[in-house]
Amino acid sequence: MSAYDALMAFQRQTSALAEVAGRTGWDQEVLMPEGAADQRAEEMAALESVLHARRCDPRVGEWLAAAEPADDVQKAMLREVKRSYDRTTKVPGDLAEALARTTSRAQGIWAKARASEDVAAFLPTLAEVVDLRRQEAAALGGEIAYDALLEDYEPGTSSAEIAELFDAMRPRLVALRDQVLAKPQSDQVSGRFDPAIQMALAQEVAVAFGYDLNHGRIDKAVHPFSSGSGLDVRITTRTSEDDPFNCLYSTIHEVGHACYEQNIDRTYLLSPLGRGVSMGVHESQSRIYENQIGRGAAFTGWLYGRMVDRFGEIGVADAPAFYRAVNRVHNGYIRTEADEVQYNLHVMLRFDLERALFSGDLQVSDLEAAWNDRFKADFGYAVDKPSNGVLQDVHWSVGLFGYFPTYSLGNVYAGCLNAAMRRDVPDLDAALGQGDTAPAKAWLKEKVQQHGALYAPREVIERAIGGDISPEPLLSYLEDKFLAL
Amino acid sequence: MSAYDALMAFQRQTSALAEVAGRTGWDQEVLMPEGAADQRAEEMAALESVLHARRCDPRVGEWLAAAEPADDVQKAMLREVKRSYDRTTKVPGDLAEALARTTSRAQGIWAKARASEDVAAFLPTLAEVVDLRRQEAAALGGEIAYDALLEDYEPGTSSAEIAELFDAMRPRLVALRDQVLAKPQSDQVSGRFDPAIQMALAQEVAVAFGYDLNHGRIDKAVHPFSSGSGLDVRITTRTSEDDPFNCLYSTIHEVGHACYEQNIDRTYLLSPLGRGVSMGVHESQSRIYENQIGRGAAFTGWLYGRMVDRFGEIGVADAPAFYRAVNRVHNGYIRTEADEVQYNLHVMLRFDLERALFSGDLQVSDLEAAWNDRFKADFGYAVDKPSNGVLQDVHWSVGLFGYFPTYSLGNVYAGCLNAAMRRDVPDLDAALGQGDTAPAKAWLKEKVQQHGALYAPREVIERAIGGDISPEPLLSYLEDKFLAL
Repeated sequence: MSAYDALMAFQRQTSALAEVAGRTGWDQEVLMPEGAADQRAEEMAALESVLHARRCDPRVGEWLAAAEPADDVQKAMLREVKRSYDRTTKVPGDLAEALARTTSRAQGIWAKARASEDVAAFLPTLAEVVDLRRQEAAALGGEIAYDALLEDYEPGTSSAEIAELFDAMRPRLVALRDQVLAKPQSDQVSGRFDPAIQMALAQEVAVAFGYDLNHGRIDKAVHPFSSGSGLDVRITTRTSEDDPFNCLYSTIHEVGHACYEQNIDRTYLLSPLGRGVSMGVHESQSRIYENQIGRGAAFTGWLYGRMVDRFGEIGVADAPAFYRAVNRVHNGYIRTEADEVQYNLHVMLRFDLERALFSGDLQVSDLEAAWNDRFKADFGYAVDKPSNGVLQDVHWSVGLFGYFPTYSLGNVYAGCLNAAMRRDVPDLDAALGQGDTAPAKAWLKEKVQQHGALYAPREVIERAIGGDISPEPLLSYLEDKFLAL
Repeated sequence: MSAYDALMAFQRQTSALAEVAGRTGWDQEVLMPEGAADQRAEEMAALESVLHARRCDPRVGEWLAAAEPADDVQKAMLREVKRSYDRTTKVPGDLAEALARTTSRAQGIWAKARASEDVAAFLPTLAEVVDLRRQEAAALGGEIAYDALLEDYEPGTSSAEIAELFDAMRPRLVALRDQVLAKPQSDQVSGRFDPAIQMALAQEVAVAFGYDLNHGRIDKAVHPFSSGSGLDVRITTRTSEDDPFNCLYSTIHEVGHACYEQNIDRTYLLSPLGRGVSMGVHESQSRIYENQIGRGAAFTGWLYGRMVDRFGEIGVADAPAFYRAVNRVHNGYIRTEADEVQYNLHVMLRFDLERALFSGDLQVSDLEAAWNDRFKADFGYAVDKPSNGVLQDVHWSVGLFGYFPTYSLGNVYAGCLNAAMRRDVPDLDAALGQGDTAPAKAWLKEKVQQHGALYAPREVIERAIGGDISPEPLLSYLEDKFLAL
């Protein structure tokens, strides 16, 4: 067997085990008996230990050195394995263990601090996490610590590039926010929405968006997520009796993630290319499904009919009013509840604070003040309590620095893809108005999804759009849509 | 770290991974999307490969050689690890692989042969399976091939011992069967039983039997089973609209298995002692819950009230009639549908055929005729088609030779335990008549369940009953109960 084939056979087993680990996590979130938590932690640790040992197995290094790729696909396979191997072997075992231990503890401390609005109770642990991640960045190498962390989520992207994108966006988003909020936002759905009917409608909408239930399933969980790749890609959603959009748009968002995984070329199954290439590209799929398609006037026109069929009177008079209700812009502190106009401002705030923490320009002790100042500057009103401010997200407690910017990168990519798709598929809205996403689905599958991790993140987007990535399409789309509402 | 401690730390991770493998199997049976089957097969194979490598890891042999047990518990821990290590290392890798490959294929061939009533289509593959299992027995060593296979399911028991037990039982069971079937069996429940209410009642009954839903859950599956150990022990059941006993007694049976696992001393969690010690002892728990307790007049008196509360009219006039309906004896070909009187006759038939196959006294080509002759002799009528005869069970196709006798061993153990429990707990029926299983639960936990794999199978039963294992208590119980019905 050639070194390349031996490596791929080994990786295939590693991928299969990673799928098991992912599904064990799904089980934990969706249906695990409560009392099983301690045992489950040991099971996950054992699986992670097996996966870690395989990822830095010395044979992988030997096979990588000896492998002779026959074509670009094989080159890409090796690139992905090498990135994972380098990443795992560069970080000393005791540092990796300290990170796992500290972040596991930190998550509990954060949850308690958030519940009691006690920032001080969290900061010493957060400082430990930041310090350990800084050590990890040093082990990974490179000039800028933060860029080493970014590489985990958006390979090949630098913080300078992202900053350039974001800096171009911020003033226009702040201005747009002010203009939109100055207008009345009166349309809102109202009533009690039976959770069982919400779930049935969510499934109908998921299938309408191309989600394949023969290779997936929809369950309820506290936090919506998508899990798995290849032939078993599951999503979760949730229901709120007075807000059907929570369930519906969480579902569409997760369907975007899941369709990316389901639509990857089947010849890449369980291979290094058989998964989404980055968090940003993944988010571009969930966002374009959720926003540019799911919250567009054409699709909401169809959805309005389905809502009325399912629920009867829903508090809005017609499809245009429903469209306005879906796209209602309002003040709020919480990133995950933000509308399309304001979401990226939440992300940029976090990105700038993270960079400052890792460059040494900001100390953990000054983080809350920096958060509150920036929030006031961008949103125009003050944070009222830490759970609405610096303590709102779980990410930092579990060490996810460099992750937040991928959300807005995803939005920028989605903006670019949307413009290109509408150029290539002129009848898109006519189909969407019938609840038919097939033309959109086909375009996204062909241009982005089928490739899995074949191309680097920016490359797959640039190939899809036939040009350079720019924030302009997203900004124009937002301005055109929300100023006309 | 001492060799003992190092070994235990290693084993703990192995146990945790085995739990993950078991739960992945649960997922497959309960809720996996259909289209995921191919990927799931690779995932399971990867997990099994990891587990196999750990079970025969050379370090385990070194630790076993160097470990110095401090007490009887540690001795028992080492005994269990050694048994698994010897078992795994004695069988050559290519033989183990051939067995896995052939049995995986054979299961599909069996299912097709059964559906088309075509014994000849299955026999060549069955011959391969028997041959491979014979090779495996030879690798495992010992004078009698079949005994080497038995060791997997009921360690420390020989086929000669089992034959002696079974030979003493068979004539009395045949005679009992004839006497009971000569009497009218007229009581039967009737009506349509809403599956949702059946599931609600099944949960109520499971909890009444001490099943802990904080460390387990009940779902539907095609075949009822119990899965997992320690803090996450799940059961499945099924519903049939015109037969509520299918759901109820499957549930009680699986609850017996599950309670054994849930009630093991928590200090054994994820250790070599933290699971049921053998199939026979496991079956003793499921059977005593299902039959001696669950089908007794006291408990069915309570259950009758719950049935009427839940379903209204159920076609029987009172609790005594309900008791007779629960214990109805009738002719039938299928082991899994057999009543308490006839079940063991089905098992003994298989045991004798298996022994003959492995001693060379019976050829695979003569198996169907041997089955049909024996069935006629014990049951008094002829097998009408292979799916009601030699093709009815999946076991042989997947290589499970030596497994069947543990079902009846379990019944014999349950008979012994029941006699001892009723001696030790005189008020048992008064509690059971109120749906209160606490005294029975406490006795079984103290005497059997808490010990996990601490004692060898026969030892745990003999300690519990304070005497020798004998078929007499089971036979007397069956004769007393069914002749009085």
